[in-house]
Amino acid sequence: MPAREEVHYFGAGPAPLPTSVLEEASKTLLNYNNSGIGITEISHRSPEANAILAHTQSGLRQLLDIPESDGPDGYQILFLQGGGSGEFSAVVYHMISIWVAAKAKEVGNDEEKLREEVKKMKLDYLVTGSWSLKASQEAARLAGPEHVNIVTDSRKHNDGKFGKIASPDTYTPTASAADTALTYYCDNETVDGVEFPSAPNGANLVADMSSNFLSRAVDVRKHAAIFGGAQKNIGTTGITIAIISNKILPPNTPMADPAIMRKLGLPIGPVVLDWPTIAKNNSLYNTLPIFDVWIAGQVMQKLIDNSKNASPRIATQQAESDQKAAALYAELDGSDVYHVVPDKSVRSRMNLCFRIKGGDADAEKAFLKGAESKGLLGLKGHRSVGGIRCSNYNAVPVAAVEKLTKYMREFAQANN
Amino acid sequence: MPAREEVHYFGAGPAPLPTSVLEEASKTLLNYNNSGIGITEISHRSPEANAILAHTQSGLRQLLDIPESDGPDGYQILFLQGGGSGEFSAVVYHMISIWVAAKAKEVGNDEEKLREEVKKMKLDYLVTGSWSLKASQEAARLAGPEHVNIVTDSRKHNDGKFGKIASPDTYTPTASAADTALTYYCDNETVDGVEFPSAPNGANLVADMSSNFLSRAVDVRKHAAIFGGAQKNIGTTGITIAIISNKILPPNTPMADPAIMRKLGLPIGPVVLDWPTIAKNNSLYNTLPIFDVWIAGQVMQKLIDNSKNASPRIATQQAESDQKAAALYAELDGSDVYHVVPDKSVRSRMNLCFRIKGGDADAEKAFLKGAESKGLLGLKGHRSVGGIRCSNYNAVPVAAVEKLTKYMREFAQANN
Repeated sequence: MPAREEVHYFGAGPAPLPTSVLEEASKTLLNYNNSGIGITEISHRSPEANAILAHTQSGLRQLLDIPESDGPDGYQILFLQGGGSGEFSAVVYHMISIWVAAKAKEVGNDEEKLREEVKKMKLDYLVTGSWSLKASQEAARLAGPEHVNIVTDSRKHNDGKFGKIASPDTYTPTASAADTALTYYCDNETVDGVEFPSAPNGANLVADMSSNFLSRAVDVRKHAAIFGGAQKNIGTTGITIAIISNKILPPNTPMADPAIMRKLGLPIGPVVLDWPTIAKNNSLYNTLPIFDVWIAGQVMQKLIDNSKNASPRIATQQAESDQKAAALYAELDGSDVYHVVPDKSVRSRMNLCFRIKGGDADAEKAFLKGAESKGLLGLKGHRSVGGIRCSNYNAVPVAAVEKLTKYMREFAQANN
Repeated sequence: MPAREEVHYFGAGPAPLPTSVLEEASKTLLNYNNSGIGITEISHRSPEANAILAHTQSGLRQLLDIPESDGPDGYQILFLQGGGSGEFSAVVYHMISIWVAAKAKEVGNDEEKLREEVKKMKLDYLVTGSWSLKASQEAARLAGPEHVNIVTDSRKHNDGKFGKIASPDTYTPTASAADTALTYYCDNETVDGVEFPSAPNGANLVADMSSNFLSRAVDVRKHAAIFGGAQKNIGTTGITIAIISNKILPPNTPMADPAIMRKLGLPIGPVVLDWPTIAKNNSLYNTLPIFDVWIAGQVMQKLIDNSKNASPRIATQQAESDQKAAALYAELDGSDVYHVVPDKSVRSRMNLCFRIKGGDADAEKAFLKGAESKGLLGLKGHRSVGGIRCSNYNAVPVAAVEKLTKYMREFAQANN
């Protein structure tokens, strides 16, 4: 029956949150800002809720240096529901719709010509782990497999398993950028412990940053859209954050008429995942879980307060994340008892996947048991791949990492 | 700067929650069940999360007497994200898919015959207020307006405004039940203050109960599906509850192949709103906001604890809801200063919509101001219709209603 202070949690998500934020959250549940009403009870259309929304949006803008403008160079910050998995679909619905609208204009709304053009339309996916694979499968289900082009599949370069990202010169993107409705990648693969060192290239670039959002600087301007579930580095399960370029939103870019999409046999998404609708309503088209938005805003405020004059603001957290990850990998590399699963060139700073004694079941069980006895929890690998996974999210304190590396060393010495 | 005890909140949703539940929630945020980890931080796949899920499902089953069985007579209880608005779409995707699968079998997968059959497919909507109207519009956007049949539109029977439900003998349902993919109604219309006295009839009946869930007994067995956002009578914004008949789920009923749906120009929904996927994974296909599920479970447990031997368990709360509503309507009917907007036959027990002095702006402003000075908050009508709206959800205590009726009487006396 441990107290909060006695435990360090390394789960892959939902992830730990700063204790100070949770303490404040506890109070707001009963009475938000001395209104007499709890934060989950206030109207999402109240001035209080609007202020929370604006605060969180502003925090994210500052941290990641997201361009604010009504023009085509600006980006909208949206809050949605449905997690990263919801956005796997939203991405497809949206990018196809704007691609079709543009083509329809090009061919003067000639239906037969449009039908011919649509045959060429491709959704490019970089499959570098379980989550990008899932996203590509959702695209195939919605749009039809004939429209999905796998630009790279890491398994083909790594004995059938994820754990590597092949060199870009092996990629097979769709030949014409004009036919590429989107280029999709997952910046950090939670299950496989693989992270892109930097953003890949591609037309209409879309990134899933669910598991490394706010852990490093992002070249936002390179992307058409970036999304992520909040429950790892940002906040609580319940909101998904999407950063959408104005270039892919009305009025800069029109959407296809649903009637045309139906005629072409192309999918139409639900209104709650429709980026233009959510953008137009400043994320208040339907009831937004304001509590989750507030939590995210408090987490961001903490990062900003700690960032001093870093530019971008996230640089301070990035340095800490890098250092924590480096300390953990140094420990793993320092003993033959451990081996890190993914290739050195693409090791994730967020989810460190490793095996013990070549994947010895008893040794791994003993490692987990020993860790648990020291209050080091959540270290079991994903059920699909096994092994050990240490998630190094922002709210995992340096002290927790020090305690874990110490334990790793002791375990290695005792088991060598 | 009022304390929680000094305020009574009558907002239309998010709604108040029992203080005792929020007090307990405050503690769980920091340390759930002495695990050392907060409830928003624990894994949705942990034993703790599974126990929370099972507890909430069991609570709902007991309260509404929901048949539990793996066979066709049983119902699944699902938790989704996206609120009621998300389900507006989910309903359409799902009911069309099973309708098409059944027809495809009937015509031996002959594509041309199937195409002819699909032309007859109808989605029947009972439009009795703003929310059912929105749901019917979403159906038209996704499936095409030619497939939507408006069974009744209350505005045609009430001078162009919502506020009435016409007699069923004026309804125009699709002639053949076999062509009716669904019959949709919204049990309680939050904006317009209209509630069905009892469930209507119709093939493949689907109900939106977002705003009167857990306020009265429900004839579950009459429905193919019932859904509702949690943020009114059930809990916090963030989860949607769906009660789905096994009769409309695999293996009892197959889904159409997405390739066929695309060929027919019919919509394919996102995986996060796909009922069979969510059912198969016991609501854990993707990360479920366990905190919101826990809150709902605590609210349900309170209702069960208070219900003594009532059958169904919800009957005790139903009696209280009815009494509170009756007291408020009696006060409104007792003075010429007030008039209730909807027709007496369909007055909502949850959202009481009324005008003051025939909708006199100054008088209504004065009423709201006076109420606020007594800590009676959230009484402003929906922005689309104006006037006053008193929401009488479960967590509005009898004492709050007594305070409000007293104020209503004083205001009427002073303004007569």
